[in-house]
Amino acid sequence: MQIADLFANVPADLPAELFETLLETESLRIERIVSHAHASEPDFWYDQDEHEWVLLLQGAARLELEGESEPIELRAGQAILLPAHQRHRVAWTTAEESTIWLAVFYR
Amino acid sequence: MQIADLFANVPADLPAELFETLLETESLRIERIVSHAHASEPDFWYDQDEHEWVLLLQGAARLELEGESEPIELRAGQAILLPAHQRHRVAWTTAEESTIWLAVFYR
Repeated sequence: MQIADLFANVPADLPAELFETLLETESLRIERIVSHAHASEPDFWYDQDEHEWVLLLQGAARLELEGESEPIELRAGQAILLPAHQRHRVAWTTAEESTIWLAVFYR
Repeated sequence: MQIADLFANVPADLPAELFETLLETESLRIERIVSHAHASEPDFWYDQDEHEWVLLLQGAARLELEGESEPIELRAGQAILLPAHQRHRVAWTTAEESTIWLAVFYR
């Protein structure tokens, strides 16, 4: 029985965001994403075919969602659902520590 | 855009484990489970039709899995996959704080 430790193996130096697939089936994918002061490129928007339920496990982040006037600030323990094709971008993640996301993608 | 806070609304007095569905589709269900010094009944085993990927968000727990000689101890940030019909029970959760689980059930 294999235990995954989502707070382990967080690189001290993280030149780009780190995406790791923890589980993948035909209909479901669970990823750990690690950010450290990263944000999406200024004009980049995610536009995904899958729904994404995302939970912040550590750190702090701000998301911009197309059609929402205010950015959404997330702290550890907070989750939101991003429906497929809800365009969004990461506006900010804290520089104080690594931000660890758990993302569940599904169709 | 609705934010769920998995560390909020944790009852101080918890006579029984608390199960809350955060997301449900045809193929997927995400639950928050809160335990506080709870364990499964001595002869009770979960035997589920769905696979369960479970992550400990807070607290500490020990699981017994049929066919494994040693119990599995989980702390915050640790996750395991319980395949469908892998019989298992919660042997122990800490009395020091609430144990908060995130469980992703899928077929």
